[in-house]
Formats: sequence, structure tokens, C-alpha cells
Amino acid sequence: MKNEKERYDLSPKELPEKWYNIIPDLPTPPPPPKDPDDGPSRMDNLNKVFSKGVLDQEMCEDRYVEIPEEVRELYRQAGRPRPLIRARGLEEELETPAKLYYKSEFESPTGSHKVNTALPQAFYAKQQGIERLTTETGAGQWGTALAYACSLVGLDITVYWVRAASSWKEERRNLMQLYGAEVHDSPSTQTKIGKEMLNEDSDHEGSLGIAISEALQDAKRDENAAYSLGSVLNHVLLHQTIIGLETKKQFKMAGDYPDVVISCVGGGSNFGGLAIPFAADRINDGKETEFIAAQSEVAPNLNGDYRYDFGDYAEQTPLMKMFTLGHQSAMPSIKADGLRYHGAAPIISALKNEGFIDTIIFPQDEEYVFDRAKTFIQSEGFLPALESAYSVAAAIDKAKECKRKGEEKTIVFNVSGNGFMDMEGYRDVLGLG
Amino acid sequence: MKNEKERYDLSPKELPEKWYNIIPDLPTPPPPPKDPDDGPSRMDNLNKVFSKGVLDQEMCEDRYVEIPEEVRELYRQAGRPRPLIRARGLEEELETPAKLYYKSEFESPTGSHKVNTALPQAFYAKQQGIERLTTETGAGQWGTALAYACSLVGLDITVYWVRAASSWKEERRNLMQLYGAEVHDSPSTQTKIGKEMLNEDSDHEGSLGIAISEALQDAKRDENAAYSLGSVLNHVLLHQTIIGLETKKQFKMAGDYPDVVISCVGGGSNFGGLAIPFAADRINDGKETEFIAAQSEVAPNLNGDYRYDFGDYAEQTPLMKMFTLGHQSAMPSIKADGLRYHGAAPIISALKNEGFIDTIIFPQDEEYVFDRAKTFIQSEGFLPALESAYSVAAAIDKAKECKRKGEEKTIVFNVSGNGFMDMEGYRDVLGLG
Repeated sequence: MKNEKERYDLSPKELPEKWYNIIPDLPTPPPPPKDPDDGPSRMDNLNKVFSKGVLDQEMCEDRYVEIPEEVRELYRQAGRPRPLIRARGLEEELETPAKLYYKSEFESPTGSHKVNTALPQAFYAKQQGIERLTTETGAGQWGTALAYACSLVGLDITVYWVRAASSWKEERRNLMQLYGAEVHDSPSTQTKIGKEMLNEDSDHEGSLGIAISEALQDAKRDENAAYSLGSVLNHVLLHQTIIGLETKKQFKMAGDYPDVVISCVGGGSNFGGLAIPFAADRINDGKETEFIAAQSEVAPNLNGDYRYDFGDYAEQTPLMKMFTLGHQSAMPSIKADGLRYHGAAPIISALKNEGFIDTIIFPQDEEYVFDRAKTFIQSEGFLPALESAYSVAAAIDKAKECKRKGEEKTIVFNVSGNGFMDMEGYRDVLGLG
Repeated sequence: MKNEKERYDLSPKELPEKWYNIIPDLPTPPPPPKDPDDGPSRMDNLNKVFSKGVLDQEMCEDRYVEIPEEVRELYRQAGRPRPLIRARGLEEELETPAKLYYKSEFESPTGSHKVNTALPQAFYAKQQGIERLTTETGAGQWGTALAYACSLVGLDITVYWVRAASSWKEERRNLMQLYGAEVHDSPSTQTKIGKEMLNEDSDHEGSLGIAISEALQDAKRDENAAYSLGSVLNHVLLHQTIIGLETKKQFKMAGDYPDVVISCVGGGSNFGGLAIPFAADRINDGKETEFIAAQSEVAPNLNGDYRYDFGDYAEQTPLMKMFTLGHQSAMPSIKADGLRYHGAAPIISALKNEGFIDTIIFPQDEEYVFDRAKTFIQSEGFLPALESAYSVAAAIDKAKECKRKGEEKTIVFNVSGNGFMDMEGYRDVLGLG
């Protein structure tokens, strides 16, 4: 019987009261974003399209940022705090001496960790009197989370959705629509940049970078709208630290502490959310925690160059210092579309540059990864999102390494979303009947 | 801001230690199952195909039944206890004086309340040395839950799946397969009865009754296999009382008590799970709680005749005393396939016969129901399964009635599953793009 694993549950009262901002603690903080030498000021544009609440947080130099009571209430409704689970079933299956724990971000109303930043972003926009948010989405998780948040706080929302994913994930579109969202496949005919891309190729499969450009253009031309981004930026990672802050409390309950922290990295928000509070301990308390980012070989952005680059295809964002493959690089489509982004968040890039982060790059053929996800599904019972499968696969490979080396390491990994709406990806890759 | 609702969370330690068996408390207990006048003894057959653990519980006369510690552990892994949530957003949307609460059975690893009985059933079978379970499934929720439970305890499983649902829910088949299940569309070529039905009509869309017959035949011919049923029987309802037992504790926390208890009824297990512990208070403590069963006009079994009938199409089960439409009645297919069963569980039927249960029958055109589900989705943020949408719709209609009459009633309803894998049903009926 493979069922002796434990859950570490925090009570609603134990929900953290502050987010953690690592920037003041970083030996070398990420340099600020800047304008390119030519063209209009992207920095000025940014100030126009973001709500004030998140702009303030983007530049924030405080170590801790109060979570508004209304946002804590929204977090609790969305099921926070979420359990940390000891993976006894998986440990037994792998016969590893390692201790495996996973954070259950998949237990989310919309299926992913993205609600952690969607809720405060919608809250701040509403507070400021904004009527509509625009955004982009890749795997569809972010668009769904923001549609959910807008529905709860009473905002309209327009979503630009990378066609590579939207074309086979009709269900996610419908879910966003049930929440009241207007959804456009990107490139779309709604914006100038979208039309240009469609003129080049009427079946253009899009990318996160292009979709960002479209959502930015849409927000810029409507004074009652603001733009909202689901990853990469400092304020997004700030909100996501709720994951790691809870997890630290839960490790205290368990009387344990991780030697290895693992998650998948697209833009870096779920990885950062879990890792950043532990990275603080490595900086301030001399912990020797190892951080592993799981990526696909189609977008191994952490192995790119560390330089200033645009966040989007059409060069509408400021330049940010990040590990990047180049903002116009072609990335073959994979099922785990949320990992298909050219750059890593400036904070994650700074940590990588500091030597904090190792990477595991998985092959484009996703069978290797999804096979490992299947082992997790059968031993733990939970169905990871396709992106989260990369986190699971990295944890399994690390646990196997521990077995070979006879190491009793404590490993924690984030299962950032559930795969209820990702079944076609599993089916196609694993050849299910 | 529509977000002041409260969650009532029990700690893992507060998970009930016993299931509640209402039979000894019923003024007129359901008469026992019996054999028909002709043919082989179905009672003997039943004793052969069920595991000993559940057979004992089927006949049990004790008021409380200890939940084995291993099953409590499995329940905790699966996320029990589950929150009771005050639907402040929905109340505000409806401008109703009623207080609405819902039980979050949708927060389940496989998406529904069916895990509550799947886990003990798999546990008892494994304990007895059985190697494989066979079962039927309608909406797919039960098959998925049992596949999950079998995967965790280490059993093989064969699922016979009503073709009316399986033909458009490919994703659920894939999920069962990820858990390691063998899945056959029913009628199938695997059994005698299946072949007979296919000979009559090669596109036969099946029914729960036919699928039950197939699973029973399969279990009977393999001495290492047992049959497992996801609804209707006494032991299933016994296991499901975990829902209502938790909910009663949560109402104590809230300092409130329901005037109205609502859920959808197919076979009756999720309704019974929530309602039975409150029905006990009506019997023993003189509470005047109202119980409302939400059904579809294609299968309003609680408005059928109260008589002995078979549980399956092919007459392989014993006769059970229940409200029934007739075990071979044709029921037009609807999207909420889990509600499409000819009879109501003997315990539910006994309660109905006692005058405890009112019914709300919704039209075959499911737009009426799914529109109300959309109101719930946009005000509470959670996505109900198609069957659970009937429970939501009944609660909304009741809350509107309270508004018309100016009644401040406390209403609790069960949201028995999530709809992440039901999106095609919402799309087709609501005409989403």
C-alpha cells in the first residue's frame, strides 16, 4: 500500500501577511529596465498601461510588502494556504533514499498558481477605477486566472492567446468565456502588430512575445484599460512568493528543510515563487540549498546570454537585463506551451548570474517528461499540468540520482498546475487510445 | 467587490472517525434486496462479485461504522476534510436574503465526490487479496475515481463506459488510462450482454444499466476480480456520509444550521452523502430541514413508482425496493450523463417515501441549468461539473424564491464535482465560441 504520505496544512489564519521582495537582499540586484537608444520611450508607455499599485511594487525596495486584507481574503477563497505533501508513494515507487515533498499549487480554482498574482493585480486595478484589463496568455493558464480574478472583483477583460496553444485548447477558451472574458487568438486582427504578422503568414502560430505586443497596444489606446502581465516582472514574482513563504512554514511543521528546490521555468514566476524565500536563506543564513530550473530544449532561456533584451516580439516593452535567447527567436511549438518564452525574469536571471540556479534541459520530444509525470500520477494520484510535468520529471531524475549516489537529500518541487484541461497533450505524446 | 465570503476549514485531525448508517434510525428501513421469482439467484451472484468488506457494510445494522485508519489516511491525502464555503458573491448577485453555503467536493484529485467511496472500496478489496476491480461509469467521474483509488492501493481495474458519454469525453478516457485503467466503451465486445446489444444496434449509446451488466459479467468469470459500484447501494451511501458529517461540524463552526439541503440525484450518492446526517437530525431531534433533489426530466426517477426493480438493464442484480422509471426505460441522452439512471438508491427512496424529499425537475434542454451555473462561476469562481450544475441551479432557484417571499433561510448545496473536463457540454449547450 503506497499511501503513507503526509500533508502539511496551514490554517487560514497562518496565511502569510506579507510578500517577500528579494531585491534588497540580492548581492547584485537586477539593473533597472531602460529604453533602447532609438524610438519612443517604452518606459513612459509602461507607466501608462500598468495600474499604479503594481507599478509601485515593480520599483519597490522594501524587503516585505503588506498583502492587503482584501487580497488575503481573496487568497483564502481561492483555497490558500495550499498543502505541502510528502510524496511517500513516489519515494516508494522510485526506491530512493531522498525525501520528496511537493507544493500543491494545482489545487486552484482555475487550475494553476497564476491566481496568486491575478488576484492582487485585479484588486489594484479595480481600486484605481480601471474598467478593463488586457493581457496575453500562452498555455492558457494565465488568461484563465486573470479572467477568474476579473470576474470576482468586477472588471472586464480581453485576452490575446498564442495560436499555437489556442488552436488545440478550445476548452480553455470556453472556460475564459464562462468567466466573461473576450478571447482573441494571437496574432489577431484586433491590433496593428497582429495584422502585420497575419499578413506575413495567415496561419501564424504566434508566440508569447507577439501576444504581449497585442495586449499592450490594446491597453494603450483605451484610457479606461490597463495591461496585466502574468510572469517575468518583479511585482509578479513578489506576489508569487506566497508559495515559498507558505512552504517554509510547512517545512518548519515537518521539522525538515530542503536541500534541493525544483520547478519548471518559462518566464520564471512559479519557480521564483517557490525558490525566492529559500534563496533568501542561502544569502542571509548561509544555507547551501541547490536550485534546479526545469526547461525544454526549445526554450532554454537560462542558458542564453545575460544581456538587455525586449520582453516582447514587437519591441514595445523596455529593455530588461535577462538571460535571453533573443526576443525574436523562433521556438518550435511543444505541448507545454507555457515554457516557450525567450527570456527569464530579471530576478531569476540575477539569481542565475549569482550562480544560484542549475538547469535541467529536457528534450523537445516530450515523451521523456510525460512518462515521468505518469509515474507521479500513478503513485501520488494528482494530475500535473503539462508545464508542471517538467518540474515533476526533474524531481524524479534528481531522486534517481540520490539513489545512485546513496544520498538522503530533501527535495521540494512545485506542481504549479493541474492537467485536467491538458489531456490532449498527454494523449498525443504518450499515444493514449 | 463581491468577495467577502467565508470558508469553514476543518483541520486534518477533525476528519470524522466514523461513517453514519441511517438505516437503524429510519422509521421504515428499506426492505432488503431479493431474488426475482425466476432464473438464477442474483443474491448468490452478488455475494460472489463484491468484496467481503463492502458486503458486510451493505447489510450493516450499526448506527456508526469505524473508518479504517488507512482509509482516513487516504482521505487526507485526497484533500479531506473539504471546506464549506459561504457563497457571499452569489448571494450579492442574487440579492437574496437567504444565506447560501456550498460544500466543495469539487476539490478532489479526480474532480468529484466519487473518491469518497472509491478509496474504501479499493482498500477493502486489496486487503482481501483481490487483484482486479471491474466497474461501470456514466459521466466518467466514477470510473476516474476508482482508477485513481486502484492506482494508489495497487489494483488492476477494468471500466465499462456508457458510450453516450464516452463518445464525447475522450479526455476522461485518457485520464483513466493515465491511472492505469483498461477502458471499454459500453456496450462492448468484451461480454455476452454487450455483444447482444451491439448486434441489435452497432451504434448503441448504452446506459448505466447496461454497463453495470457488463462489469458484473466480467467480474463473475474471474475469481481474482471483484465488482465495484459507485452509487445506489447502502455501503456507497455509507461512505459518502463523510460529506454531511464534515458539513455538520462546519455549520457548528459557522454558528448556523441549514433550513434547506440541496443536491442533484442520479443514483443518489452525493445527495445522500450530504443529506443523510441532516436527515438524522430531522428524525431524532425534530429539525424541520427541507431536502431538495435536483433531477433532469429525462430521468426523474424519484417521481417514478416505489417498487422492487432491477439495478441494471440485463437483470443481473437482485431486485431492490426503489423509486424507479423501470430498469429498461429509454432515457434521452443529456450532457449531465451522471443523472441518467432509472432508479434512486434504496436509502434515498426510503427517505422519499417517508416524505423527506422534494424534487425539482429541470428541462431536458440544459440551457436553463447551465446558465445558472454560469452565474455561480462568475460570482464564486468555481467551475461545477455538469451534474453539479443541477445542484447549483436548484439552490439559485430556491434563493430566488426566498427573495420573492422575503425569507432568510439557510441553504446548503453540494458542488459534487468540477467541470474542467466537461467543457464541451457547456460549450454545446451555451453556444460558446
